[in-house]
Amino acid sequence: MRSLDPIITERLHARVSELGGISEETGRLTRSFFSDAMTQVHFRFAEWAEDAGLSFTIDAADNLRLRWTAPAADGVTRPLLVIGSHLDTVRDAGRYDGPLGVLTGLACIEQLQAWGEAPPFDIELVGFSDEEGLRFQTAYLGSAYYAGVFPETWLSLRDAAGHTLGEVLASRGRSAAEVLAAQRAPENLCGYLELHIEQGPQLEADACAVGVVSAIAAQTRARLVFSGKAGHAGTTPMELRQDALCAAAEAVLAIEAYARATPGLRATVGQLAVVPGASNVIPAEATLTLDIRHQADMSLAAAVAELESNTRSHAAARGIALRWEFLQQGKAVPMDAALTEHLKAAAVARQGNAPVLVSGAGHDAAVISRIAPVAMIFVRNRDGLSHHPDEYVAPADAELGLAVLADAVCRYAASTP
Amino acid sequence: MRSLDPIITERLHARVSELGGISEETGRLTRSFFSDAMTQVHFRFAEWAEDAGLSFTIDAADNLRLRWTAPAADGVTRPLLVIGSHLDTVRDAGRYDGPLGVLTGLACIEQLQAWGEAPPFDIELVGFSDEEGLRFQTAYLGSAYYAGVFPETWLSLRDAAGHTLGEVLASRGRSAAEVLAAQRAPENLCGYLELHIEQGPQLEADACAVGVVSAIAAQTRARLVFSGKAGHAGTTPMELRQDALCAAAEAVLAIEAYARATPGLRATVGQLAVVPGASNVIPAEATLTLDIRHQADMSLAAAVAELESNTRSHAAARGIALRWEFLQQGKAVPMDAALTEHLKAAAVARQGNAPVLVSGAGHDAAVISRIAPVAMIFVRNRDGLSHHPDEYVAPADAELGLAVLADAVCRYAASTP
Repeated sequence: MRSLDPIITERLHARVSELGGISEETGRLTRSFFSDAMTQVHFRFAEWAEDAGLSFTIDAADNLRLRWTAPAADGVTRPLLVIGSHLDTVRDAGRYDGPLGVLTGLACIEQLQAWGEAPPFDIELVGFSDEEGLRFQTAYLGSAYYAGVFPETWLSLRDAAGHTLGEVLASRGRSAAEVLAAQRAPENLCGYLELHIEQGPQLEADACAVGVVSAIAAQTRARLVFSGKAGHAGTTPMELRQDALCAAAEAVLAIEAYARATPGLRATVGQLAVVPGASNVIPAEATLTLDIRHQADMSLAAAVAELESNTRSHAAARGIALRWEFLQQGKAVPMDAALTEHLKAAAVARQGNAPVLVSGAGHDAAVISRIAPVAMIFVRNRDGLSHHPDEYVAPADAELGLAVLADAVCRYAASTP
Repeated sequence: MRSLDPIITERLHARVSELGGISEETGRLTRSFFSDAMTQVHFRFAEWAEDAGLSFTIDAADNLRLRWTAPAADGVTRPLLVIGSHLDTVRDAGRYDGPLGVLTGLACIEQLQAWGEAPPFDIELVGFSDEEGLRFQTAYLGSAYYAGVFPETWLSLRDAAGHTLGEVLASRGRSAAEVLAAQRAPENLCGYLELHIEQGPQLEADACAVGVVSAIAAQTRARLVFSGKAGHAGTTPMELRQDALCAAAEAVLAIEAYARATPGLRATVGQLAVVPGASNVIPAEATLTLDIRHQADMSLAAAVAELESNTRSHAAARGIALRWEFLQQGKAVPMDAALTEHLKAAAVARQGNAPVLVSGAGHDAAVISRIAPVAMIFVRNRDGLSHHPDEYVAPADAELGLAVLADAVCRYAASTP
């Protein structure tokens, strides 16, 4: 196996640190859609692209696009392999979630060049401008535009300052309508690869630096509203109560028990609010959110149906009305088998094995899957901690991720006629 | 049995309606401590007192005091029987909680006069100025001053407008220190009687208009703080979670189950808050309030000890830290046996039986019990609904309450040497 160039790996680590310091807020890392901080990041990439001989473009949705075009016979349209992840962050973020994938992609191209590789396809490195949805509360703005599926309805979303997304997109001179009309998926796209931190504890538990993703889980989000009857805490006998919070508590535990008993299922009640919410008044209403995910659409649907039936019958037995409101019902995104095999083979060669993980979190790859075969690798991060300034990836783990990514591109190139 | 004078009962109902319309807010009934609305109420009582030949006083804590002094031999100090309840209300209140007791007390004196009674004690009718604690979030301001136990520490409490309680007490010309120094319990107090609406559904279930109180329940209020570990809802496997809300839900159900299995116990979780409270983040912290009451101090203490032990061991089994913070630990207030016997005998004579109830709610009688024997009767209210504009007492039920109160005073007078 070929070694990584230490100049490239050192530069990768230094760039991760440098981007981690480019923020729109003092003292903590926050980088949102169309921010000055994002533009500063782009300026840095412009220099790095020039050094690596890559063309540099920022598209109308503020996505960074660096392209490595190898010499080709005149008139031949070469396929395009995309390597990408996102450059935006949550508020008070860590420095790895997103940027590590973009910077490792750049290091990958540099390493392929250093190895003297000449793949039979162009490679475009993409740094998506918005995956987290911090500014407009809608995720995947960047990859949706890149894939040509950015809906017009998003243009009227407003940020905290009152600006619409349409106004922001129009701030570079073209109207929002023109920007939208210009969006189209790249031609000749043959595949998309993304490296991302795991944001979970599985690789740490497996003692592996790199894992291969089998699918991005299907996700359903729902709101459950339990309605009972308020009453005086001191004067209402227990047997005459219709306590909405007790019914909600039963649901919380039923959801947890069902998820624990069902392999691969993850179910979370992250919010719970009580009305009227006074210490001496029996709760009249309790509202909770359910976030439930599984890699298989059928398993998720079965879980939701079972939980809906279970919670309804338990609430009814208490004389409590229960309303389920579905906020989101997303399907699972399976990874492309052929691309994933290259990643697996590379991982086995570099680390001896290739743990396969389901991604519980969503990623740009889910959007790009609408226009191309996609595959992903995960890199271990400490304690699974993410969306937090203490987020951390060991340099050696990032390097193994880089090696697997670069090897997989070579394997893919070798398999391409 | 003697009949009630229909002029007196009709006047009672009319006065309940009239006071129900004297509010500091338009369109709903709200009457707080030292408000103009309370002063308007006092003006009405001044007229009614004059008609009934009672002396009229407003004390420095805005308590209404009307005194019926029968002629006595020179130099003889007569004992004092007090009949009272409160004239303040919660926000958007019903018209019966408090005022019904004061107005029935006035009707009781009028009825005793109409019957030609000449009890061997003075009777003071008291309308306490603050039982609900709406303005300063501290209940029993009025009865505490009346009993001479108003603590200096309360003077620095602030209302929503930023005024201290000390400033409010000083607004009639005397300094707060002088007001406090002047407080003393009345002399020769032989007993205190209070009629109040039940604020619960027990009398309705028993199909009785009037019940006799055996004790005001002991009450403990605590805050339980469960601390686990936040995590990504999509990436953290169920078996690696420390979900603070699941632990809190177990506690909610354990508290309910214990209370259901323990006669006379009432336990309520009225507030529950989750941190960080995002639908896709595993709860790191959950905080709930426990309000638990029983007529027997020992039973309450045993329940609290058992629940503390139970919730601690269940939380520990989940790897969740649990902190119990006690906010209030009040003792039960038993009613005076002799006074209560007079109320029971009167109830049995008037309605055939005398259901005995524990008061789950606190009342002015609890404060007055520190300086005198106290006893209470409850009047049925529709659906047990209280602290709500739909609060309702049937006129016939109020009249039966009046009859029982008046008869009990006569029985007590007859038993007094």
